[in-house]
Amino acid sequence: MAIPNESYSGKINRKLLKKQRIIRVAAGREPADLVLKNATYLNVFSNELCRGDIAVAEGLIVGMGDYTGRKEYDVSGRVVLPGFIDAHIHLESAMVTPREFARAVLPHGTTTVVADPHEITNVMGTDGIDYMLQATEGLPIDVRFMLPSCVPATPMDEAGAVLDYRAIDSFYEHPRVNGLAEMMNYPGVIAADAGVIEKIVAAQAHHKKIDGHAPGLQGKDLDAYVAAGVYSDHECSDLEDALRKLQRGQFIMIREGTAARNLDALLPLLTPRYYERCMFCTDDKHPGDLLEKGHIDYIVRRAVAGGADPILAVKAASHNAARYYQLNNRGAIAPGYLADFAVVDNLEQFQVQMVFKKGKLWYGDGYFREMPLPAIDPWLVERAHDTFQVRTLAVDDFRDRRRRGVLGLVPGEILTTDNGYADHVDLAQDILKLAVVERHKGTGHIGLGYLQGYGLRAGAVATSISHDSHNIIAVGTNSADMALAVNRVVENRGGIVVAQGGQVLTELVLEVAGILSEQSVEKLNTQLEKAKETAHGLGVSRGIDPFMTLSFLALPVLPTLRITTRGVIDVNSQQYV
Amino acid sequence: MAIPNESYSGKINRKLLKKQRIIRVAAGREPADLVLKNATYLNVFSNELCRGDIAVAEGLIVGMGDYTGRKEYDVSGRVVLPGFIDAHIHLESAMVTPREFARAVLPHGTTTVVADPHEITNVMGTDGIDYMLQATEGLPIDVRFMLPSCVPATPMDEAGAVLDYRAIDSFYEHPRVNGLAEMMNYPGVIAADAGVIEKIVAAQAHHKKIDGHAPGLQGKDLDAYVAAGVYSDHECSDLEDALRKLQRGQFIMIREGTAARNLDALLPLLTPRYYERCMFCTDDKHPGDLLEKGHIDYIVRRAVAGGADPILAVKAASHNAARYYQLNNRGAIAPGYLADFAVVDNLEQFQVQMVFKKGKLWYGDGYFREMPLPAIDPWLVERAHDTFQVRTLAVDDFRDRRRRGVLGLVPGEILTTDNGYADHVDLAQDILKLAVVERHKGTGHIGLGYLQGYGLRAGAVATSISHDSHNIIAVGTNSADMALAVNRVVENRGGIVVAQGGQVLTELVLEVAGILSEQSVEKLNTQLEKAKETAHGLGVSRGIDPFMTLSFLALPVLPTLRITTRGVIDVNSQQYV
Repeated sequence: MAIPNESYSGKINRKLLKKQRIIRVAAGREPADLVLKNATYLNVFSNELCRGDIAVAEGLIVGMGDYTGRKEYDVSGRVVLPGFIDAHIHLESAMVTPREFARAVLPHGTTTVVADPHEITNVMGTDGIDYMLQATEGLPIDVRFMLPSCVPATPMDEAGAVLDYRAIDSFYEHPRVNGLAEMMNYPGVIAADAGVIEKIVAAQAHHKKIDGHAPGLQGKDLDAYVAAGVYSDHECSDLEDALRKLQRGQFIMIREGTAARNLDALLPLLTPRYYERCMFCTDDKHPGDLLEKGHIDYIVRRAVAGGADPILAVKAASHNAARYYQLNNRGAIAPGYLADFAVVDNLEQFQVQMVFKKGKLWYGDGYFREMPLPAIDPWLVERAHDTFQVRTLAVDDFRDRRRRGVLGLVPGEILTTDNGYADHVDLAQDILKLAVVERHKGTGHIGLGYLQGYGLRAGAVATSISHDSHNIIAVGTNSADMALAVNRVVENRGGIVVAQGGQVLTELVLEVAGILSEQSVEKLNTQLEKAKETAHGLGVSRGIDPFMTLSFLALPVLPTLRITTRGVIDVNSQQYV
Repeated sequence: MAIPNESYSGKINRKLLKKQRIIRVAAGREPADLVLKNATYLNVFSNELCRGDIAVAEGLIVGMGDYTGRKEYDVSGRVVLPGFIDAHIHLESAMVTPREFARAVLPHGTTTVVADPHEITNVMGTDGIDYMLQATEGLPIDVRFMLPSCVPATPMDEAGAVLDYRAIDSFYEHPRVNGLAEMMNYPGVIAADAGVIEKIVAAQAHHKKIDGHAPGLQGKDLDAYVAAGVYSDHECSDLEDALRKLQRGQFIMIREGTAARNLDALLPLLTPRYYERCMFCTDDKHPGDLLEKGHIDYIVRRAVAGGADPILAVKAASHNAARYYQLNNRGAIAPGYLADFAVVDNLEQFQVQMVFKKGKLWYGDGYFREMPLPAIDPWLVERAHDTFQVRTLAVDDFRDRRRRGVLGLVPGEILTTDNGYADHVDLAQDILKLAVVERHKGTGHIGLGYLQGYGLRAGAVATSISHDSHNIIAVGTNSADMALAVNRVVENRGGIVVAQGGQVLTELVLEVAGILSEQSVEKLNTQLEKAKETAHGLGVSRGIDPFMTLSFLALPVLPTLRITTRGVIDVNSQQYV
């Protein structure tokens, strides 16, 4: 907590007074602010369950033993764990603001998340980072940030900003910025590309962490990537991949999120030989998944059900992530650590019953304390609600007769196939018109192509969630409904629209940067499910998520064909077709 | 390495060019600077021995596998380990300058030491810290510093300086300063004494470590001490003490030095359940002990002989200390880590055969590269060689007939007994005159008392090594030889003198701050042994180290009686007798 105009002496004095109180409480000379009486708690240092009262003062644990406090909770029969940490998540994946995200995950025992604001930064540039920093200030979960390393994700992308190391440099001074987020451009690292390596050396110059993203990388290329200064990986989907990286010193984030789920494959890491270098993350967590399964508690529960030692699993869920990020005051129940607790029923069910953050009960036994509303600068609020620079489109904008590439969907896969060319919609063959509308700079660029395998029989679907640039992607059986859907997305300043026959059938408003809603996760999810139902009603195949499927079609790093604001591209050859 | 007047952009560019070269070598596009061919090396991450070539560029490990280099060493049949780290040592205990210390320990595989310059700082104030920083710059062992927390050691001490938090604060900016050294004043911490707690909160404000020193502390007092922010302890002499501290989150430094040897008692910590929170230190290491036994290699060897898993022992000797001090680029053999290696014959004998620091062979197979002479500011050199402010003393200064307390020596113990009073030397009862001469500020203070059990039959012994203030302590059968011995110590600007019958029989010159010699450890030790022999020849009991015994008699924290510049004090009651 920085205090304006505070002298260094003044700061030391302020901390001195606080520390003296902590010592008096720890030594038993003063009552604690809070005591968890009769606790059974996990000791991450001696790797055992210990018993005693846990005393808290000034938001910190001060002692374990026999204490009295101004506020006491008897936690007999339960187990007190350090609050959970999600080591890597894009908060935007929950489609709500950070406050609503916090409301959703705190009851699951999460007290810290390390977020990469990659999506909003691709829309708003560094204003997106500022927005997220302000939108997370004072929340009862501690949101730490890694700075997006790849904006835009590729040179083919037309994102809201182009960020070099200088653009993000000043953010390293922020007390909640812990490093450089997943360095997805591993070919650029291995090629020693100056613009990429500059970002790494700048992060190192600030003594910050650099997270990795390099599925399957091995051999000398992996050596080069690690030697460059990339300290972790969350993309391991098999044990061999993880062990290769662990052996070279990378920390392994075992990911179990909505889209990618690697826990089963990596469960053997949660053994004494390896677990110390492992932690948990979700990477992305969609609203329905969050409501249905939970968060890090879900991963712990599944790991233990899968045979992992509960003590090792909890350490991966808390202590190890704290050690990796050098968040040295959390991830343990011991004097001097933050009083962040997840109180669970037992070490089999791991049902979270109470959650404390900095010594305050936020959730427990039916009680849920109201969260503060973070104060965000008005100009940033306005900026976040005004991210569309698109003129009103006409039917003609989508009407053309050129031959265009056809992206083929593969059920259950994120890959597409190259299905040749088409020059018109052909419902008999399930070939639909596909468009990406540039929406950040008012360039008027509209990339056109065709999509096969989506199933839509009538109308159009448009969404402004479209990785990683979040331009507007639309698919339709006819140009009129496509224009209507896209125009409606723009009018709403973001979101999802399903239109048919000149009518908007359903819509979801994502008014913050075109990707987030200010509603609760519950309300947002109800609307989302309704919108999905509408899309399925128009024919979209049941095996396909109508919106998530679209949202990956404009990401020109996934084979085979993708569509950008400049047309259909063959990702393998990096040539427009 | 800070470069004067370098812009931030310039710094990033410099690091970029270096990093690009590292990547090219790691990726196999350029030959390495150094390759250890056919290595068997310890992988601290996967906890196993691995095989392959180890490639080095720009002083860093860049890859393990199949590499070629401009310089290659075949290390077949040996085992490559990360260089060893001594987690806590007072370099002054070796009685030589840091360069000579480095020459002595490097062949034992030590590549990093964390030093507390407590002794020299008690003599020279912060000039002592500056001297040590400069005297260690560029050495082939990396000397990190913890700032002395207790100068003077007690309010009864007359040291060369009185340092509050402000006095040491600017040193935290130095890249080789890692924190605040052993907080010996644990009663002050528990009492929440402002002057003590300020030092802790200032170290925390700089995000630095704070080491502990609290033998046997337990219960709420231990909670208070740990809650205050003390992160480690090196004073555990039994397992229960260590486990109590480990459970509360303190890192345990297993100490095996010259004076205190705790390895045997703490060996059970080197097991999978606990070892992760443990490291090795020597605390003090006297010249003879260093030459005879070695350094951290000796501890590893003994631990393994005692039944410890060699992999865990090596991790305690390297990786774990690096993790604790957040020296994140060392303590492992993996890409991006410093190329600091101890090459040993095998994991039973642990005989160090080659030592590399930052990719350079410094010692190996008979070869020993000449060490650079650190450049020390001339004024600091002069300052270090001129630390005595004592007028020439006369026989009368030691001649008095008052009744004084008698300190009783206990063979094999550092404690003294309260042997009542005496008012004259009485050789029949082995009662000798004892004096402490203040030597820092020219106060003229001379504390007088008596010593029983030392055995001297004739002459006097004086030394300027006298913990922690390093005033001159002298013992003798007569005032004339005491005055001669003390005057000679002052003339020599420090050291040890044995005199008898008006003659100096032997002397050891410690010209740097009165506590260090600029000679090699070997030469110094030869002279020291000769001086000891002379003292024993004058009657000093064979079971007693003639100088080390004296050096603790003026430390007013050890029961029962001690002598200060103001007379004999009862440590238990804190009253002069």
